[in-house]
Amino acid sequence: TIEHIFKEIFKAGLELQEDDHRKALLVSRKKQPENTVIRIKGIEIGNGKKHHVFGPCAVESYEQTAQVAKSVKEKGLKLLRGGAFKPRTSPYDFQGLGVEGLEILKRVADEYDLAVVSEIVTPKDLEIAVDYVDVIQIGARNMQNFELLKAAGQIDKPILLKRGLSATISEFINAAEYIISRGNGNIILCERGIRTYETATRNTLDISAVPVLKKETHLPIMVDVTHSTGRRDLLLPAAKAALAIGADGIMAEVHPDPAVALSDSAQQMDIPTFDKFYEELTDLERRLG
Amino acid sequence: TIEHIFKEIFKAGLELQEDDHRKALLVSRKKQPENTVIRIKGIEIGNGKKHHVFGPCAVESYEQTAQVAKSVKEKGLKLLRGGAFKPRTSPYDFQGLGVEGLEILKRVADEYDLAVVSEIVTPKDLEIAVDYVDVIQIGARNMQNFELLKAAGQIDKPILLKRGLSATISEFINAAEYIISRGNGNIILCERGIRTYETATRNTLDISAVPVLKKETHLPIMVDVTHSTGRRDLLLPAAKAALAIGADGIMAEVHPDPAVALSDSAQQMDIPTFDKFYEELTDLERRLG
Amino acid sequence: TIEHIFKEIFKAGLELQEDDHRKALLVSRKKQPENTVIRIKGIEIGNGKKHHVFGPCAVESYEQTAQVAKSVKEKGLKLLRGGAFKPRTSPYDFQGLGVEGLEILKRVADEYDLAVVSEIVTPKDLEIAVDYVDVIQIGARNMQNFELLKAAGQIDKPILLKRGLSATISEFINAAEYIISRGNGNIILCERGIRTYETATRNTLDISAVPVLKKETHLPIMVDVTHSTGRRDLLLPAAKAALAIGADGIMAEVHPDPAVALSDSAQQMDIPTFDKFYEELTDLERRLG
Amino acid sequence: TIEHIFKEIFKAGLELQEDDHRKALLVSRKKQPENTVIRIKGIEIGNGKKHHVFGPCAVESYEQTAQVAKSVKEKGLKLLRGGAFKPRTSPYDFQGLGVEGLEILKRVADEYDLAVVSEIVTPKDLEIAVDYVDVIQIGARNMQNFELLKAAGQIDKPILLKRGLSATISEFINAAEYIISRGNGNIILCERGIRTYETATRNTLDISAVPVLKKETHLPIMVDVTHSTGRRDLLLPAAKAALAIGADGIMAEVHPDPAVALSDSAQQMDIPTFDKFYEELTDLERRLG
Repeated sequence: TIEHIFKEIFKAGLELQEDDHRKALLVSRKKQPENTVIRIKGIEIGNGKKHHVFGPCAVESYEQTAQVAKSVKEKGLKLLRGGAFKPRTSPYDFQGLGVEGLEILKRVADEYDLAVVSEIVTPKDLEIAVDYVDVIQIGARNMQNFELLKAAGQIDKPILLKRGLSATISEFINAAEYIISRGNGNIILCERGIRTYETATRNTLDISAVPVLKKETHLPIMVDVTHSTGRRDLLLPAAKAALAIGADGIMAEVHPDPAVALSDSAQQMDIPTFDKFYEELTDLERRLG
Repeated sequence: TIEHIFKEIFKAGLELQEDDHRKALLVSRKKQPENTVIRIKGIEIGNGKKHHVFGPCAVESYEQTAQVAKSVKEKGLKLLRGGAFKPRTSPYDFQGLGVEGLEILKRVADEYDLAVVSEIVTPKDLEIAVDYVDVIQIGARNMQNFELLKAAGQIDKPILLKRGLSATISEFINAAEYIISRGNGNIILCERGIRTYETATRNTLDISAVPVLKKETHLPIMVDVTHSTGRRDLLLPAAKAALAIGADGIMAEVHPDPAVALSDSAQQMDIPTFDKFYEELTDLERRLG
Repeated sequence: TIEHIFKEIFKAGLELQEDDHRKALLVSRKKQPENTVIRIKGIEIGNGKKHHVFGPCAVESYEQTAQVAKSVKEKGLKLLRGGAFKPRTSPYDFQGLGVEGLEILKRVADEYDLAVVSEIVTPKDLEIAVDYVDVIQIGARNMQNFELLKAAGQIDKPILLKRGLSATISEFINAAEYIISRGNGNIILCERGIRTYETATRNTLDISAVPVLKKETHLPIMVDVTHSTGRRDLLLPAAKAALAIGADGIMAEVHPDPAVALSDSAQQMDIPTFDKFYEELTDLERRLG
Repeated sequence: TIEHIFKEIFKAGLELQEDDHRKALLVSRKKQPENTVIRIKGIEIGNGKKHHVFGPCAVESYEQTAQVAKSVKEKGLKLLRGGAFKPRTSPYDFQGLGVEGLEILKRVADEYDLAVVSEIVTPKDLEIAVDYVDVIQIGARNMQNFELLKAAGQIDKPILLKRGLSATISEFINAAEYIISRGNGNIILCERGIRTYETATRNTLDISAVPVLKKETHLPIMVDVTHSTGRRDLLLPAAKAALAIGADGIMAEVHPDPAVALSDSAQQMDIPTFDKFYEELTDLERRLG
């Protein structure tokens, strides 16, 4: 019938239009079928092997950071996270040590031969940060801080871009496109849970986002199990699910003494918990092959 | 200081109150630390071994159902799903074959020695259904149809209870409590995605719900990967995540010819896809040990 | 260009398809441009004049119900609500007085010459309810209890249909279509807030749903300010917004002594608060003309 | 009983703690019971009288902006909005004219004796903007761009702060606190809809946020009906609800020729629609008294 033919034309048009749009994006797998592989201090992220990021929520002191770095190093890992600039809901909460925090991170990273991942929250700090940091993190609250994204696109450092608090996958992809469109294609995407009505977890880990992003883009994907669950008892199960579904790595927070942490004390692992967590994680990695 | 002491009393009170409440629930792990194990046709759900549920969205004919049953049987599986009563958004969509559908399911199940899982949507149909069905499914839209829950609590058949479209985990647990409080403790919980703002998937699979429910209750948990993702290309990744995080089994829809299916045509697997899906799923099961 | 023409065809197709679909619905304004007007005990709902529904959350006793009825009557109002069958999250919460509650409502309504609005939660109770109740309420949790909707479509009583906890407007319209498609077109729609991440209010009142539903359907629309806000201090502001945006009436809960109410004690108005509330509401009605 | 007493202590503690926290905030009504009144070009926002903000989504040219300004001026209004820096989901969408846009706004505002409201998206542009703009807008995507908030707190211009895409009311209040804590208390809050699962409207207008914010803070509240509804046919109903519930003013987008607008073409009003909209709005204002 005429109607049927019309419907077919209609559907074809819909697909064509969507195809066109996605093909245009530089981050899309249609544009580049092979995975982007990011090289940092001798490791390669995105080539199939898993690489994880651990470290304290916030850098509080040299000692605190060094203790975690030592534990990271002993596991044969390379990536250390730590917050120097902390975006906090209240202006009266601890806002991070700033440049002093970056200095501590750099010193510790040099001593333990690690690469540093740290969040930058405003364009002007990017210039300073490149001297201290190996991977610039752009946090959930800044995923649509477009001026920061543009600036991040103009530096020569890998960017770890976190999904916004309630960003759609499409908005997340477009945020990455802001960075790559300015010249910097070394982008790691990081799923960190989305805001929903559920309160049993801090956010709702959108685990399906991992295969969707893998299909739509050629970028590596990590999963932040700390902020997505907000519960220490869920870090390991969430990490297992992330590895099984194909994430390139896990991000989680570790603190020598979470009870006295200046931020996120309820969800950071202490060192012994971290040891156990990592043992089970690597056991799963071996099984998954 | 006084303030500090007060805060501690306060926190203790908070925990005490929550403890009390959860201890009171019959489904809670505090009430019964060991897992509930449900026996159906010689298999045991909840004892650690995985058991999956496959079958068409809706029973459309004997032939269609038998084709899927044959494929399920050949895999050594025991559980066949199929909808006879279909809750549909529009009154003009196919509403299922009703009792005729149950008859087909029973005939096919007998021929292939399978157990049948089928949804019942209203109390009065429960009486009929017990003669045809081995596991009564209560669907997402009826998770708070409390009269149906009460009636399900009074029959002697296992219940597969799906999480509501936007039910909190706490509401989900209370829905199961309606059933057990009337005497029927053979309940399988099923996470099937929750409603969020994200549109890349039909619903958002709340994978963290699995360990949360495992911790809070002693009931087996399955994950419906068909309704949570709504995308054929995400069924396998989602199923892998579900197994890795500790689900007792996977539920997914299989149809001999999805393109002509009377419902959910975009997300059912055809038989060859099902074969491949199952092969990869069992490979993962072996690896996970 | 060819592309442009194609796009225009495409857009035309999209609109055509949507048009067709909506035109098909019996509740749609395309099917019936003029408002449906529902006659209950001499009042007409849907003809432009406002009619409100007040009463206790649950019927607890004759005295409690009569006190509220007296206050409703004194205001010249006609519609009294009261719950006899209460859907509650926990099986251990007060579930309503059932048929005894309906008897109390009927007795009080006869004494004060009021029409009764009361919720029915399962098909079999509908048969009993028609002897006691003037308007059958179908609650949020049952908006997609399709067997209940079908049964409600076969009786000769107006139905007040509440929007589901997280139903889309399109699903809400289709739920009403279930009722009208079975023959009963006397349907009042009721917006009662939707589930979101926001916790300052019990639900989020989707005030825009009122004009959307007015445009899409020919049915009267009420706004339940009690369940949407869950806060006594927001009942009046929410009611003002609802009237200004074009709702046909307000629904709110009133209890002689909210502090001892068996359900929803935090959000019901006591009689003096109700008097003040109604005074300000009618003042606004006069101003709006 | 002991338990009861303990519960009472517990509740008292809960309230005390919340009280303390809120009292501490400079924006809270507990800190300052009387309304903040903001003076701009001879008008006073926050003193009870309504003041509205109209103008194009983006400044595209002198002519386009002047046409709208003329219409605003003729209505006796004082506030003209227009975007020079446009945060857009895709890097390939029109990003605004930047400083050139500010120059156009300034020229037009001077000619028509209007005050300009325009969005600034990054701290360094604030210094330039103060020479051109009367009210600095901080947009939804930047509500938790804390460096921008801190910078806005250090200038001597009123700030119009929009609620984030899915910010809680508590986060919104804390964002305002970032500004006031640096010294700038001239803040107008603007509800602009929140992200939910509903797709009938672009966002869900959280109308209850207006009385909640009025109660919790001493700041003026406006409602952006354009971005909350995203539908031209809902602008007037939403504006009526906003006025009735107590908003201090309405914000809406007006464009001489929406069909060719470089952004948001589907939701801006043309001048005749604006005339009619404003007529009905002022009629309601007169009625509300």
